[in-house]
Formats: sequence, structure tokens, C-alpha cells
Amino acid sequence: MSRTAQEEANLKLVLDMFEHVLNPMDSAAVERFISPDYIQHNQMAAPGREALKAFLDMIREQTPEAVHDVKRAFVDGDHVTVHYHVRRWPGDPGWAVIDIFRIEGGMIAEHWDVMQDVVDGGPNPISQF
Amino acid sequence: MSRTAQEEANLKLVLDMFEHVLNPMDSAAVERFISPDYIQHNQMAAPGREALKAFLDMIREQTPEAVHDVKRAFVDGDHVTVHYHVRRWPGDPGWAVIDIFRIEGGMIAEHWDVMQDVVDGGPNPISQF
Repeated sequence: MSRTAQEEANLKLVLDMFEHVLNPMDSAAVERFISPDYIQHNQMAAPGREALKAFLDMIREQTPEAVHDVKRAFVDGDHVTVHYHVRRWPGDPGWAVIDIFRIEGGMIAEHWDVMQDVVDGGPNPISQF
Repeated sequence: MSRTAQEEANLKLVLDMFEHVLNPMDSAAVERFISPDYIQHNQMAAPGREALKAFLDMIREQTPEAVHDVKRAFVDGDHVTVHYHVRRWPGDPGWAVIDIFRIEGGMIAEHWDVMQDVVDGGPNPISQF
């Protein structure tokens, strides 16, 4: 691999955020990872870091068994890409998600994502992931 | 940037494929970029390289004005990520797409993607892109 130490640190920051924020849906850990100037590009989210905390509190209440199963992750300079499978409850086909994060000053400063329902029984027998 | 020459070549291969295959929807150019052993993870696509050619022929006929507008692209070793906006016709809100490609032997050997409708008027005033 050709990753620099800074790239390894950026990738680790994002994977640590998955472990400590997204998987446990823990709004109390947001400020360790997310910049106060967080730029949110998800269309359905209200902008900013406080809105992210409220979103995490909501999904933890609504879907306490949700899992965010990381399939692959990459880093290029200050951008990190994560491909993962969200299942809201056991047996949920769930969503395929790819997130792109921009890191600045050791924090996640910007976020884009694309989400899609996982559909069983389509024409392709190969896994979505 | 910390990209190696091989990473720059991998990124260029994918962006050249967008220019010569995806944007013109040109099935005749597929074999210059896509491995004969192409692994397709898109759920709605039939597997393999020949199916990709048939798909391109179909969309060129159905949506000859389609554009694939690349917003950002990254490379990490043999994986390339591209975030882009598909509009099938002028004025189409279109889809947000993130593709991940794996490069092997100078060809695109594997592909994952996630697609989502672009929705106007959601709670977030910041662009999807």
C-alpha cells in the first residue's frame, strides 16, 4: 500500500467514528469526531453537527438493533470512502450506502452519501457487496 | 498528494472510461477498459462485460441526451471511487451515484455502485453534491 501516515490516520478516524458513533448510534460521541463546522450533503438531513446528534438519538430509539456493516473503505489524501450495509433490524434487507468524508484538522468536516434499498431477486446473482 | 504513479494510472483509466464509454454510451469502447472477467455488483444489471455493452446500447437509444457529470474521484491502491450526477435528459433531477471500481492488469475488473434519486425541496438546503 502507498498510504501515508496522514492517510492512515484519516482512515482510522472515520472507522473509529463508525465504531464509536454510528454503530452504537451514540450522539454523546459526536464531538470527538465531527467538526463544529460540519458540512452535511445528505439530502434528507438537516444541516450541521447538532442535527446529526438529533438524528442519532432518533434512530437509536426507533431501530435499537440497527447495524452498520462496513464492507470496504479507502482513503485518498483527506477524503475517505466507506461502503457499508445498514440493516435496521434482524432480517432487514436494508440499504447499501457509500459515504465520502472530508477530513480537516483531525475531524470529519464534510460528508456526502448515496443510499439504495437492497433488493433480493434481481437479475444479478452476484452480491450487491 | 501522495498518489503513486500506479494510482494516478488507475484513476486515469477510470476517468478515461467515463469519457470514452459512459458519457458517449459507447459499447464499442468497452473492451479497451473493461476486463473480460468483469465482476458486476450492480443489483439490476445482468453480470459480465457483454451485458454492460447491451446496457450501454439500450440507454443510448432510450436517453441519447444523458450526461454523467463527475463531481469528485479518488484512488487508493487498486480501487477508484467516483461520485457523479446522472441526468437522463435536460432538466432531469437525475440520480446521485457513487461507483467503486477495482483495477487489475490495467483494466476495470470489478464494480460496485449505489444510486439514489436527487430530490428537490428536502430539508437540507446544501447541494447533494
